[in-house]
Amino acid sequence: MKIILDAMGGDFAPLEVVKGAALAAGQYPQANLVLVGDEGKIRSAVKEAGTVIDGLQIVHTTQVITMEDDPMSILKAKKDSSMGRGLRLLREDGDAFISAGNTGALHTGASLIVRCLPGVHRACIGTVLPFETPVLLLDSGANAAIQPEYLAQWALTGSVYASRILGVEDPRVGLLNIGAEESKGTPAVTAAYGILKQLSGIHFVGNVEARDVPFGKCDILLTDGFTGNILLKYTEGMGSMFFDLMKDMFYKNTATKLAALVVKKGLRQIRDTFDASAYGAAPIIGLAKPVFKAHGNADASTIASAVRQAVRYVEGGAAKAMAELAFIHTETEQ
Amino acid sequence: MKIILDAMGGDFAPLEVVKGAALAAGQYPQANLVLVGDEGKIRSAVKEAGTVIDGLQIVHTTQVITMEDDPMSILKAKKDSSMGRGLRLLREDGDAFISAGNTGALHTGASLIVRCLPGVHRACIGTVLPFETPVLLLDSGANAAIQPEYLAQWALTGSVYASRILGVEDPRVGLLNIGAEESKGTPAVTAAYGILKQLSGIHFVGNVEARDVPFGKCDILLTDGFTGNILLKYTEGMGSMFFDLMKDMFYKNTATKLAALVVKKGLRQIRDTFDASAYGAAPIIGLAKPVFKAHGNADASTIASAVRQAVRYVEGGAAKAMAELAFIHTETEQ
Repeated sequence: MKIILDAMGGDFAPLEVVKGAALAAGQYPQANLVLVGDEGKIRSAVKEAGTVIDGLQIVHTTQVITMEDDPMSILKAKKDSSMGRGLRLLREDGDAFISAGNTGALHTGASLIVRCLPGVHRACIGTVLPFETPVLLLDSGANAAIQPEYLAQWALTGSVYASRILGVEDPRVGLLNIGAEESKGTPAVTAAYGILKQLSGIHFVGNVEARDVPFGKCDILLTDGFTGNILLKYTEGMGSMFFDLMKDMFYKNTATKLAALVVKKGLRQIRDTFDASAYGAAPIIGLAKPVFKAHGNADASTIASAVRQAVRYVEGGAAKAMAELAFIHTETEQ
Repeated sequence: MKIILDAMGGDFAPLEVVKGAALAAGQYPQANLVLVGDEGKIRSAVKEAGTVIDGLQIVHTTQVITMEDDPMSILKAKKDSSMGRGLRLLREDGDAFISAGNTGALHTGASLIVRCLPGVHRACIGTVLPFETPVLLLDSGANAAIQPEYLAQWALTGSVYASRILGVEDPRVGLLNIGAEESKGTPAVTAAYGILKQLSGIHFVGNVEARDVPFGKCDILLTDGFTGNILLKYTEGMGSMFFDLMKDMFYKNTATKLAALVVKKGLRQIRDTFDASAYGAAPIIGLAKPVFKAHGNADASTIASAVRQAVRYVEGGAAKAMAELAFIHTETEQ
């Protein structure tokens, strides 16, 4: 299997991507890893890391998509970027692509170069909210405006992802809404409810209110990319705020500092509850072939764990299961 | 000034409403309080509370809007409900109305009976997110689907509320969005940005991302009622989850239980940070006359503090300042 890595994407590229690839190469010998990027810089990074990448292929490119670049630049102005080239390699004969670069460009490039599965109108970005019962949030930011049928398509593709990659048996699909009743929400959301309740192949549990999201009401949470992105970032913001408040509380005096020592381990566990990057790279779901978005500050171990996700995707039959969905896609149309 | 109370609204009505009215009557002698509801039940509650309500007027009604009632029932089937009657009294010669009853019915009734200020198309519900810098969230749930100009109208009316009632000088208005750039978000949100940046009479600070909401980036946060309601309820949900995790952490063993005792006061303060009801009743903003929604589980002190808000609204010139906004409303049209 051929897994392609964007060597130039992310805050610490190419060094951490190279180190991550070397790490993954040792762990997953069944994967042929391809590093796409500036060959000179990749070789320097290999040297700096003091590692070897003998078995790895390097595909040289001269351009890099920056965080400021317009997503559409991947198609024309920066066609030969590591990200653009990597996505074309994926389309031709790759099995998965991983990048820690510009999310918008990656989603746009993946949608237009790799393309969606037949019957899927838009690919979405999946992020796992790391609660006690983890929740796969779809869409977490790619599609601000939606059509009701997108949610149905994400319910189907997301269910395959959750069962094959996250290991959730018969994943429960919830619709993020402002009340339990079927009639609640915007016109798009109520229309989506109507499609979802009749859709076979998913385990739909109805509307889920935001206050219940952390408490295991569903395994997959469907929403538009605007609301999803706000939910995701608010999780981060609330987490930061909690820990600021805790810090103030525990740094008050000697007694409180001693109290902090007693619960140190527990505090670390709670902090992890708010760390969405704990679940590795975010999959772009609904594409003909899998693309994973690693966090911008990805280090070697994050890159290696993204390779693990990609390997699991290919070996676990997710690709095949996704392709089979194409046969039932007409059901999602209104 | 005449302040009207829905004696039958809320989980503990009429007892707690009656007790709250008696409490407020002592504190705000300048207010003429009117209790609307079943007179027999109100008199029984007075007896049960062991209080007196000599100076208070009672307006007898026979119907009650329940939490299950359709919001529109306030106009026809339950025209003589305490809520419907109270809103008509407000329209006729009242100065403010307070209810702890069905939010949807209250918003619908207020919009159709009391009506919006000239130039305001829809009234919104304001809730204060009680962070270190409190944030007035508009809309927190009344209007799931919006037009861009609604946000501009709420920016104007919300600014009057924040300065006159919450005491915020020159309140900073932020637009909840999924990025800092003007082009981000749904078509409605980018259109709203275009109107807001040119609107005089407000202090617009641009887009605010959800992760920054707890950290004092704005005093007023504008969003549609769908996203706003989700943000509000997620604040509650995250708060509950956090305290569940803390409880588990501190109940582990004797050492952790002792540690909990040391930081007990600090923990209580943090808990209050998530208590949206700490800021009293939620105003319905944009109406010709003020209506306040007290929390469903309101007790006597919550009701009394809602009366304080209403008194401040009338005495602080908020009503006059709102009415003056009518002259500049055309600016909010696209």
